[in-house]
This record gives sequence, C-alpha cells and structure tokens, in this order.
Amino acid sequence: MSGRRVLLTGGSGFIGRHCIADLQARGYEVHSTTTGSAGVSDGVHWHHTDLLKDGQAAALLADVRPDSLLHLAWYAEHGKFWQALENLDWVRASIALLRAFIAGGGRRAVFAGSCAEYDWADGHCREDSTPLRPQGLYGVSKHAFHLIAEEAARRNGISCAWGRIFFLYGPDEQPGRLVPLMIRSQLHGERAACSGAELQRDYMYVTDVASALVALLDSPLEGAVNIGSGQATLIRAMTDHITTKCGHPELVDFPVREAAQKDAPLVVADTGRLGGELHWTPRVSLDQGLDLAIDWWRQNGAHD
Amino acid sequence: MSGRRVLLTGGSGFIGRHCIADLQARGYEVHSTTTGSAGVSDGVHWHHTDLLKDGQAAALLADVRPDSLLHLAWYAEHGKFWQALENLDWVRASIALLRAFIAGGGRRAVFAGSCAEYDWADGHCREDSTPLRPQGLYGVSKHAFHLIAEEAARRNGISCAWGRIFFLYGPDEQPGRLVPLMIRSQLHGERAACSGAELQRDYMYVTDVASALVALLDSPLEGAVNIGSGQATLIRAMTDHITTKCGHPELVDFPVREAAQKDAPLVVADTGRLGGELHWTPRVSLDQGLDLAIDWWRQNGAHD
Repeated sequence: MSGRRVLLTGGSGFIGRHCIADLQARGYEVHSTTTGSAGVSDGVHWHHTDLLKDGQAAALLADVRPDSLLHLAWYAEHGKFWQALENLDWVRASIALLRAFIAGGGRRAVFAGSCAEYDWADGHCREDSTPLRPQGLYGVSKHAFHLIAEEAARRNGISCAWGRIFFLYGPDEQPGRLVPLMIRSQLHGERAACSGAELQRDYMYVTDVASALVALLDSPLEGAVNIGSGQATLIRAMTDHITTKCGHPELVDFPVREAAQKDAPLVVADTGRLGGELHWTPRVSLDQGLDLAIDWWRQNGAHD
Repeated sequence: MSGRRVLLTGGSGFIGRHCIADLQARGYEVHSTTTGSAGVSDGVHWHHTDLLKDGQAAALLADVRPDSLLHLAWYAEHGKFWQALENLDWVRASIALLRAFIAGGGRRAVFAGSCAEYDWADGHCREDSTPLRPQGLYGVSKHAFHLIAEEAARRNGISCAWGRIFFLYGPDEQPGRLVPLMIRSQLHGERAACSGAELQRDYMYVTDVASALVALLDSPLEGAVNIGSGQATLIRAMTDHITTKCGHPELVDFPVREAAQKDAPLVVADTGRLGGELHWTPRVSLDQGLDLAIDWWRQNGAHD
C-alpha cells in the first residue's frame, strides 16, 4: 500500500499533530496544512495554506493531488466555538476543500464530525439509530457539511467516512477546558470550580482519537463512525483522579447549577462500528491518560 | 412601512424578475444583484455582483446595508442542476451572503428552498410532518443550507423563513423544461416526447411563485413554508391543454419509461401555512398560465 499520499488539514492542531506518525507508519506520504509555524514532525510536507482564504484549497490540491484526505481543521476556540459564526466560514472552507479534492481525483476522505450532532437525550449514541439533533451552530454546521460531503462524495466516486468525535483531552489542550483547568489549578495551588460533576461523558485520550481517525482513513468503512472509548466516565471521577494525584482535593468546589441542554446526564459512544467493524480499540486508559496530561502540564506550562 | 430596503438576489432570473414590482408595491427600496445585463424594471438599484466570487457579497452588503434579504440566486441549469457540483458553490455563496447580512445588521430574510427536500413517498408534502429526504446534490445542498441559515439567523436576531418552491412554469423558461418543450415543438410543428404523463405535480405560474415569496418576506412567518398551489396537476392534462390550444395533439408521444426515484406518482404542496397563516392564494389558474406561456413563446422565441 505504498505510494499513497494524504492531505492532513490541521496537522499542527490538538488532534492532527498526533495523526502524523500513525499515517507515516501506515505508509502514507503526509502533506499537511498549517497557518502558523510548521510542526516538528520529520518527513512531513508542510504547506502554509489558509483554508479560509478563497482559492487556496484549490491551489494546494492542484499542487499536491492527494489520493487521501483527512480533514480536521475547524474553529475550536474554547467557550466560543459552540455558537460562533466562524463555523459558517469552516463549512465554506470545507466545501471548497472537498470540491478541490474531487477535482484533483481524490479517492478516500475522512472528515471530523462530532457527538454534538446527536440527540443527547438518548445517552448512548449509535450511528444508525440515535436521532440527530445537532446542537449549537457548531453541531448544525458539522451536520450540514456531513450531508453535503456524503452526497457529493458518493456521486463522484469518492469513498468517504465521517468520524463523530466524542470528548477528548491530552497534552497542550486549551487551558480553559475541563482537564487542563483542573490540573493547572492544582499545580498552582489555586481553587477551581468543577461544574457538572455528576455528568457522564465518553472521554478518550487525544492520541487514541488520532489513531482511530487514521485507522478509519486506512479502511474501506463508509458513513458515520463514532470515535469514542465506549466507556462512560463520571466527570467527578476524572476530577478526583487529578486531585488525588496532584494532592489538593480540598481546592475543588462542585457548584450546583441549573441543568442546560448540554447537561444531558449521559453521553457515550456506541463503538459497534469502531470496535466491531474497524477492529480498533483504545490503548490509553483514563488513568494513564490523565497521568500523562498531568506530567505534560508539570513540564510544559503550569505557569503560562 | 416605508424606508425598508431589500436585497434581491437573482433579480434578473426566472422568478426574481417578477418579484420586483411586488416588492416596490409593498414599499421596499429594491436592490438587486445581476451578473449579466441589468433588468429593465424601473427604479431598481442594480449591482453587478458575482456572489460566487469571494468577498463580493461582503462588499455589497456593507455598501447597501439592506434590512431585508430575498435570496433566490442559485445554479438552475436544466438537466444538470440536480447533481451538479455547482450546488456546492452556491451553498458557499449563500453562507457568505448570510454572514454578510448578519454583519450588516439585517433583520428579515427569505431563502428559496425546494420541494426536493421532502420525501416524495408521502405525496402530500407538509412542512411540519412530511419526512425530509433531500434528493440529489441539489436537494441536499438546499437542505444543508437551510439548517445553517435557520440556526445562524435565530442566534443572531434575524427573522427567517424558507420558501419550499414546488413546480413552476412561465415565460422565458429554459427551453428544455417540460412546458416550453411542449409549446415550442407544437409551434414548430415538430414531434415531442412527454414522459411521466401519468405523474401528478403541483405546478404554479411563475408570477404567483414570485408573489408568494414577496408576501412571505413581508410577513413575520418563520421556518419552512411551501410555495405551491396545493393543486395536483396531471402532466398529461398540462400537455393536453397545450396541444389542444396549439392544434397538434398528434405530434406528442407518451413513452413508457422505468420508474425512477423522481417518478413519485404525486408531489403536491400542503398550503396550510401559505393559505391559512399567510392568507395568500394564487391568482393565475393553470389554464390561464399555460395560455400566457403559449402567447409568450409565440411572440418571443418559438424559433430561437
């Protein structure tokens, strides 16, 4: 299977950077877009391309002509992405990318979807039976692009899968998100509030998310595929692991708040497709992943 | 209600040109985009803007700053639009337009949807109960943009309705479409084939379609609203009216073909919202409309 060339978008991002070695191990020649400084990974062809700028995707694809596409780039600013109008810009950018991939003779594409596409009332989210009820402009935009991508791919001879990513955490995560917030406040000896402690979510370590997406790309599976661990994790249990490890459980408050739409008690991936069809399983347990994240913040930025 | 300013896209198009007088009669200052020659309507502010070119919608909206938007422009080439990749370009263009309308302080928007968004197995299409099963890249693209437009509008204080246009006909229609095909072959004394004669469709004269869209814009109705007559018309009955009027019924063949997805026996609009909530009813009967179309082709282009 040598000679395959993949375009990875967002290759210097939170998930994307961990896809590179997996892609190379599977024999892909990796091309990646970045708008900032190139990542440090060896052997990657970095392209300084701003996918939000009209014409840049077309120019890049005409140059690289990848047979495979792993499209992860999107607006993901913590606290803003859920309703941000930037989601509209990324739908436009993603359509332009897809159009250019079709024009360039692309064969296989995997796109990053989200558990935010599902109706969370169901708790257990299964690709073929859980109703869709996309949440926020983020969920709606992802869902809308999925509809377009599936139909356009199918009509143009491209094999296409849609990875619905659940909750994730790992090194170099945006500091305002739950796991780094807890870890950093512990390392600083500061008080922190953990709301939603009673909720259960499907959390997976970021390298496993990356590995699953690459495995999906390197398979013939089509349609939506959940990218999750299949395990429900109590937010409280994650926090407890972190505070026990860091030594300051007394610094965490658990405020009671009014339940919002996002506060479904349980959101967990059914992994029948990921495990049963793709035969992929996560390698990093929750405890291992949290320990790795704690170590990373100890070494890299508790004091940023 | 004076002082209202509307941007009409596709104002020189098949439907759009008939919206202008209705908009003016309701007190709108009409601005319209065109990529070709300006229409002949008096008092319209024409803007030579190509919405498919990046940045042009933003520049136009920053200049005009309309409070109302009636967006009709889309790719509509007969025989191609159903699966054409140009649908992707129009989703991108429509999102850019919406983004610019939000940024410019827009208040009220109506977009052109399609009966192709419905599952035609139901026959009778009702906005709140007929399942959606968008057909072709055209139907999928319209549906996907609808999802985005509704959510983005709602989150940004814009009142928004989505007119699902059924079947239509009228003067200056693309010659390959059913009604002009039948009329022109009759006027030329040529043989023509009418497939699908046994199907029933909801046909409305183009000026009524335009009038309904303008009435919808000038109302507080939100969400999807069918733009149709509510009457099921047998294709055979339309053809018979034309051939009787033109005098050559013997020149039409009715080939039997294999039923395709598009060949649902009945597709008709439920007009509970259009009639019951908007209190709008069509003015032109099918017989009147066909006579007007025949007259138009007699005068304007039977020999093109």
